[in-house]
Amino acid sequence: MRRKEFGVEDTQEIEEFLREMSFGFLGTVGEDGWSRVTPLNFVYDGHCFYFHGSLAGEKMKHLAHDARVSFTVAKEYAIIPSYFTDPNLACPASAFFKSVMVRGRAEKVQNLEEKAAVLTLFMEKLQPEGGYDPIVADNSQYTGHLKSVSVVKIIPETISGKFKFGQNMNETKFSGVVQGLEERHQDLDPDTVELMKKYCPRHR
Amino acid sequence: MRRKEFGVEDTQEIEEFLREMSFGFLGTVGEDGWSRVTPLNFVYDGHCFYFHGSLAGEKMKHLAHDARVSFTVAKEYAIIPSYFTDPNLACPASAFFKSVMVRGRAEKVQNLEEKAAVLTLFMEKLQPEGGYDPIVADNSQYTGHLKSVSVVKIIPETISGKFKFGQNMNETKFSGVVQGLEERHQDLDPDTVELMKKYCPRHR
Repeated sequence: MRRKEFGVEDTQEIEEFLREMSFGFLGTVGEDGWSRVTPLNFVYDGHCFYFHGSLAGEKMKHLAHDARVSFTVAKEYAIIPSYFTDPNLACPASAFFKSVMVRGRAEKVQNLEEKAAVLTLFMEKLQPEGGYDPIVADNSQYTGHLKSVSVVKIIPETISGKFKFGQNMNETKFSGVVQGLEERHQDLDPDTVELMKKYCPRHR
Repeated sequence: MRRKEFGVEDTQEIEEFLREMSFGFLGTVGEDGWSRVTPLNFVYDGHCFYFHGSLAGEKMKHLAHDARVSFTVAKEYAIIPSYFTDPNLACPASAFFKSVMVRGRAEKVQNLEEKAAVLTLFMEKLQPEGGYDPIVADNSQYTGHLKSVSVVKIIPETISGKFKFGQNMNETKFSGVVQGLEERHQDLDPDTVELMKKYCPRHR
């Protein structure tokens, strides 16, 4: 990351964000050298990322060609209008967000028990209220499905978080943005103010 | 796209979605052959995509190495729990979403007037309420900024939309999901039901 002030070192913060987010964007490279960015539901178990999908399709071809992947998860919190800090110039217009970028190697999960365990993690994340029979390889109702779904594991080499909430601003601009967000009070504005105060401790 | 039933041919629908979405994910490839997925605010003017940023940084290095890029914009509407359509199996769990995938070639915008015009499009999209002096190259307050910001144009070769709202479901499952969403009535559930009816005309 080029701008150090936005970097997040806290593994717990990153994991919390990854638990909250249901989908991310997988970057792969095809035989022709062209990248592809595929939106995917994912789970992260604290070690690896997982996604699932059809055995067919372009992204699986890409993975067969080159297992090196990138994976990015991002959430925009607030568009910051220029007039929060400057009455004339458009330049201070910005956006505050959380993002996590991963580089890793993808490999297919082949073992049916492991596939079942990963799909259970998916259900626990995306359908925490339950309402289905446990996914186990020896339930004959699941066996065929487990064989036909592809489950891919990404073994991360690097994981970096960038949470941008005004860490680069001086006191006057920081206060201008806080005041602007408090007055606008839309969508994630209140959360954004909280995160600004959390990640910019000198402004607390 | 592998699954034809989710394809969106209507340019107007795609453009409307791109206007609504403030950010997307740029896929680039570095000298080492590894992809990078960068979240970015963007504008689409009906012909090209644009983003802006610093002149430094990894993604600019990637673009200098290989101008072929991908760009994906996606919005998740609803997580569809399995029990909307099946009392036992987890398999029908799904997610409904809109996504647009672009392949194109990136080139830097060098001309200051063109940069000013692109940044004006950004402001019109992300700060439609105004509140800034018009961005023009001969306003001396802007000239320096225009020189130091990098503006990149993506000239698309293909743009494909995938809007997944139950088009592949039979009547019974479709009704089960509609009923489930109507009862749950959270977040984007009402919009999701409308989009299901819009994109699955046989179920109207």
